[in-house]
Amino acid sequence: MAAGFRIDALAEAVGRRAAGRLVATVHGNASRVITAVAPLGTADGGDLSFLANRAYRAAAAATHAGALVLAPGQGSALFGDRADTPTLIECANPYAWFAFAAQLLAAADAPSPGLAPGAHVAADATVDGSSRVDAGAVIEAGATVGPRCWIGSGSVVGAGVRIGADSRLHPRAVVLAGCILGARVIVHSGAVIGADGFGFAPLDGRWIKIPQTGRVLIGDDVEIGANTTIDRGAMGDTVIEDGVKLDNLIQVGHNCRIGEHSVLAGCVGIAGSASIGKGCQIGGAAMIAGHLSIADQTLIGPGTLVSRTIGEAGHYTGFFPLMKHGDWERNAAALRHLQELRTRVRALEAQLKRGDAEGR
Amino acid sequence: MAAGFRIDALAEAVGRRAAGRLVATVHGNASRVITAVAPLGTADGGDLSFLANRAYRAAAAATHAGALVLAPGQGSALFGDRADTPTLIECANPYAWFAFAAQLLAAADAPSPGLAPGAHVAADATVDGSSRVDAGAVIEAGATVGPRCWIGSGSVVGAGVRIGADSRLHPRAVVLAGCILGARVIVHSGAVIGADGFGFAPLDGRWIKIPQTGRVLIGDDVEIGANTTIDRGAMGDTVIEDGVKLDNLIQVGHNCRIGEHSVLAGCVGIAGSASIGKGCQIGGAAMIAGHLSIADQTLIGPGTLVSRTIGEAGHYTGFFPLMKHGDWERNAAALRHLQELRTRVRALEAQLKRGDAEGR
Amino acid sequence: MAAGFRIDALAEAVGRRAAGRLVATVHGNASRVITAVAPLGTADGGDLSFLANRAYRAAAAATHAGALVLAPGQGSALFGDRADTPTLIECANPYAWFAFAAQLLAAADAPSPGLAPGAHVAADATVDGSSRVDAGAVIEAGATVGPRCWIGSGSVVGAGVRIGADSRLHPRAVVLAGCILGARVIVHSGAVIGADGFGFAPLDGRWIKIPQTGRVLIGDDVEIGANTTIDRGAMGDTVIEDGVKLDNLIQVGHNCRIGEHSVLAGCVGIAGSASIGKGCQIGGAAMIAGHLSIADQTLIGPGTLVSRTIGEAGHYTGFFPLMKHGDWERNAAALRHLQELRTRVRALEAQLKRGDAEGR
Repeated sequence: MAAGFRIDALAEAVGRRAAGRLVATVHGNASRVITAVAPLGTADGGDLSFLANRAYRAAAAATHAGALVLAPGQGSALFGDRADTPTLIECANPYAWFAFAAQLLAAADAPSPGLAPGAHVAADATVDGSSRVDAGAVIEAGATVGPRCWIGSGSVVGAGVRIGADSRLHPRAVVLAGCILGARVIVHSGAVIGADGFGFAPLDGRWIKIPQTGRVLIGDDVEIGANTTIDRGAMGDTVIEDGVKLDNLIQVGHNCRIGEHSVLAGCVGIAGSASIGKGCQIGGAAMIAGHLSIADQTLIGPGTLVSRTIGEAGHYTGFFPLMKHGDWERNAAALRHLQELRTRVRALEAQLKRGDAEGR
Repeated sequence: MAAGFRIDALAEAVGRRAAGRLVATVHGNASRVITAVAPLGTADGGDLSFLANRAYRAAAAATHAGALVLAPGQGSALFGDRADTPTLIECANPYAWFAFAAQLLAAADAPSPGLAPGAHVAADATVDGSSRVDAGAVIEAGATVGPRCWIGSGSVVGAGVRIGADSRLHPRAVVLAGCILGARVIVHSGAVIGADGFGFAPLDGRWIKIPQTGRVLIGDDVEIGANTTIDRGAMGDTVIEDGVKLDNLIQVGHNCRIGEHSVLAGCVGIAGSASIGKGCQIGGAAMIAGHLSIADQTLIGPGTLVSRTIGEAGHYTGFFPLMKHGDWERNAAALRHLQELRTRVRALEAQLKRGDAEGR
Repeated sequence: MAAGFRIDALAEAVGRRAAGRLVATVHGNASRVITAVAPLGTADGGDLSFLANRAYRAAAAATHAGALVLAPGQGSALFGDRADTPTLIECANPYAWFAFAAQLLAAADAPSPGLAPGAHVAADATVDGSSRVDAGAVIEAGATVGPRCWIGSGSVVGAGVRIGADSRLHPRAVVLAGCILGARVIVHSGAVIGADGFGFAPLDGRWIKIPQTGRVLIGDDVEIGANTTIDRGAMGDTVIEDGVKLDNLIQVGHNCRIGEHSVLAGCVGIAGSASIGKGCQIGGAAMIAGHLSIADQTLIGPGTLVSRTIGEAGHYTGFFPLMKHGDWERNAAALRHLQELRTRVRALEAQLKRGDAEGR
């Protein structure tokens, strides 16, 4: 566990890390030492907690946290004249302030550099002396690992891979030959970057493999979830731009591009050569067909299949609503004849129109 | 292969393992030796087979198995006066009896304890002397592995992890720092327990990582499928209660809770902070949205998206029914205008009602 | 990078590899040396490119590739009297010709055989002397690896596994005990072959594990994607026939059979004991329920749940179409009452029919 931060020092460090994008003011005892984060209900005097959602106001009013970050002006209403009020940190975006503070508290736990016994590093691979490689990890020929990286137990860094500064491969992540990762990239356990794309030429009812000779290029500040797979390009490259966040068990096909700062929830699948814009948010288990594009800032609901290009930003959805099973059976049966039902309604409309005409 | 069991000894051992929950009676030669299980059609005299579904009665009547477990009173109808009848084990729940018997036959293959060459165990980790650690496995600092465990080739047990007695990590399973597993837990290959949850604070169109400081807590008798991922909690813990069975390629988000003895089929996704009750059955590829709860004993159909809390147990479903592609195109096109169709039907109803009124 | 092929030698080698199934004629300079493949837009004089889709004719006309494979008779229309025309290889199936050529160019990069330092091979395992085993890989007791295989870093070959000639396990692939792979099989990183199937007997609200004692049998020329899982049979075997291609993150349940030369796109799930015919094409994220069969040559659309046997080949689909979120909300709400709407339309029809009858 970290030695922790005085609240005033923590506020200063958060300000630096946020590079001026967050302003905060501290009210109360700024010399308290904070060593960890905790939820409102279980926090004690050494903990930082946060209030970002009004639904948790009662829990905030009762918290025993040493420090609480919240929106400006909320403290007095919450605590009135309670004697043991937490030190209050007021910020217009308390959740982002909390995120930076939690990062600083966690960073104090960073490991010591060096190659663990049982790490396999090829003779001509380059690992910066400030980086750490754990047991069972393999760094193949010609790979380069930048400064302050952490290559976890049993990870594989393929031949010729380049990994930028301050990146982390969690245990058993795999980055295959020739792929390039930027700085501050996090790859979670079991993720596979650079497997072959799914490309075959049909011939007489068989499938002839197209060797996949492209790479995966990953920008800075990208996070890739556990057991997620990103295939290398068939000839060109698959590209994940800066700041993209991918959750677990996502499949990204060959030659896809995902625009900067897009976030994709778990179990999403993206077929080959799809292009997702910047700042998109894709719900869990959504599926994106191949060879299409999605406009910047688009929201896709969970469980939705995107089967055509989306040229206009907006919020798109398409999943069958949940029903009691018996209702589902009846409605699904009716859905099989929906077009026919539409035709019957048209016939009724025509009949009534005729009837009206005759009646007059 | 095991030396096997005499049928009478096997019956006694199953009775002990079932702890009184199963009563069985043996008819015929109880001294035969059984060494394996096999399907009805291929079993021979050293094999145990079972009949639990009436659809397989003909296959049972023709089996050459040495022993057959089936419901009470079925034997005479099946075999009449056949000379080479299998030894019959009658039990009200023949499938459960078979399961316990198969476990006993398989357990005879358990490996010898010890650390294989090429196993990496941190100096301050504790591995019980009755456990086995295979080549390429990594046990990190401060981890504890209980008695009679088997840590497969290339698995990773993270710093401070605790694993209870008789548990098994199959090759290349990963349990990350601080997570806790109960007794008799089985983790299949490629599963990742304790990767970071997907938590970010938005700031000016970017996503600021919230360090995930919680754990995954797993009860007793839990089974976790190949390449399944269970994320650690953001601050509190993700909890998998006793007896839960997860199939392959399932995603469990941070701070979820899955109630005891629930079973989830393959490819299910559960977003963060969802709470699934006890004794639930979730069909394959179902998706559960975040921050909701599902009542105990609920059944969810395959491919169903659960987008709201289910407060009442029952059977719920929601997937688009399979159609010939041309029918799908027509019905899907009509579905895009379903609400409009409903409005037109209302208009027809109103018009006819008016017409009736005028007609009288 | 390979030394490359003269175009005439490459054409001859492709002809041999295609075993007479492809006829091609070379026009222009057949002595140029080709070392790699590249897309039309970035290819230079040492590269081979292809034109298989008329949409790319303009790009082909402007390419600087050294060699271009295309359909017979297209060259003159594309290049007219351009001075620096690529050498043209005319073939009725240019994409398949390109695939074989790309394989030959890639094969020249094959690694040297041998056991890398840090490879763990059990004393009684057999690895052919022409095969390569990389660092951190584990070959368990009694396994057999055939000639010219490549077992990647951190892979696991379980006890008693047999792997045929010219097969490749990419880094961190897992093949578990007793499974059998044919020749020229490619297993991508993170794939798990032979984990336990999901089989439990219910007893008093708990789930009793059925030990899974079958195997996975994989034919020749099969490719298995990254993080895909194929479970071993419960008692019999799970079978993947020759020439099957599985993309990433696919789940194949116990005792399934997939017929030869079928292709399955990413994120597909197949429940236990399903049987998929030969030459089928299954779209991404489709889900196949258990204990059913699908006819040879069937096409299943993406995101489609197959809940019943398909006895007749054809193209089947079933996913909810994409809509703007507001439209989805309205149409999904109407879908909950679709059967009722059908009843109301029937009532209107009956009423009008009566009205007509009365009116006459």
